Amino acid sequence: MSESKLENRCPIDYALEVFGDRWTLIVLRDLMLSGKRHYRELMTSKEGIATNILASRLKKMEADGLVIRKHKPEDKRQVFYELTDKALDLVPVLLEISRWSVIYDKHTAAPPDLMRRYQEEPQQLIADLQEAARVRQT
Amino acid sequence: MSESKLENRCPIDYALEVFGDRWTLIVLRDLMLSGKRHYRELMTSKEGIATNILASRLKKMEADGLVIRKHKPEDKRQVFYELTDKALDLVPVLLEISRWSVIYDKHTAAPPDLMRRYQEEPQQLIADLQEAARVRQT
Repeated sequence: MSESKLENRCPIDYALEVFGDRWTLIVLRDLMLSGKRHYRELMTSKEGIATNILASRLKKMEADGLVIRKHKPEDKRQVFYELTDKALDLVPVLLEISRWSVIYDKHTAAPPDLMRRYQEEPQQLIADLQEAARVRQT
Repeated sequence: MSESKLENRCPIDYALEVFGDRWTLIVLRDLMLSGKRHYRELMTSKEGIATNILASRLKKMEADGLVIRKHKPEDKRQVFYELTDKALDLVPVLLEISRWSVIYDKHTAAPPDLMRRYQEEPQQLIADLQEAARVRQT
């Protein structure tokens, strides 16, 4: 994207460039909420992501500052992905999107307990989910 | 999408199917926040949407229940688009996405006054924006 296009960029447009791709959000969801960290774990999402798509999305997410690619100290061949604060700050966005889907999709698989907590104490739930993701990463 | 795939659908995945396309969200933004209602007004977004893309997105948005296509009573040739409640319920999602973009995009064009109000009184701002959109439609 040219520098002139970067000036005065609509916030919706920026966000969609970074995470507006279906697979990017699914990978984010799995890293944030399901506690997945490894490539092979991310491959098992029930949406059936193709391996080349997963690889390209993780690369873009790394370039966009959403994940950090790391090697396990005890086995350097093992790679895992750590969420950045920039990614964890998307937890409220994912929850707000889910709240909307629950209303309008009668086939929703959103966990009822989670959505009830989001209704009752949104700030606490957001903090807890972010904290849980950070703890898993240490 | 087959019926079996509809069962137990992830809320993130559902939402992306309905509004995860860049242009769909830009059209929604213009209808919601800029008060645009006509095809020719929507054509003037600074992101430069192509006319065939705008037409196809509006058609999909109609099928997904986000907009209703109407004719002006005084001039039947004039078409305008009205947002449904399903679309207006996305106001909090757009605001939450914008809040995130303002933090992470130094080139953001998000209106500072709007974002300050979202910080200070989110529920009131959401209600006001939805009300303003409804009033424009009557």
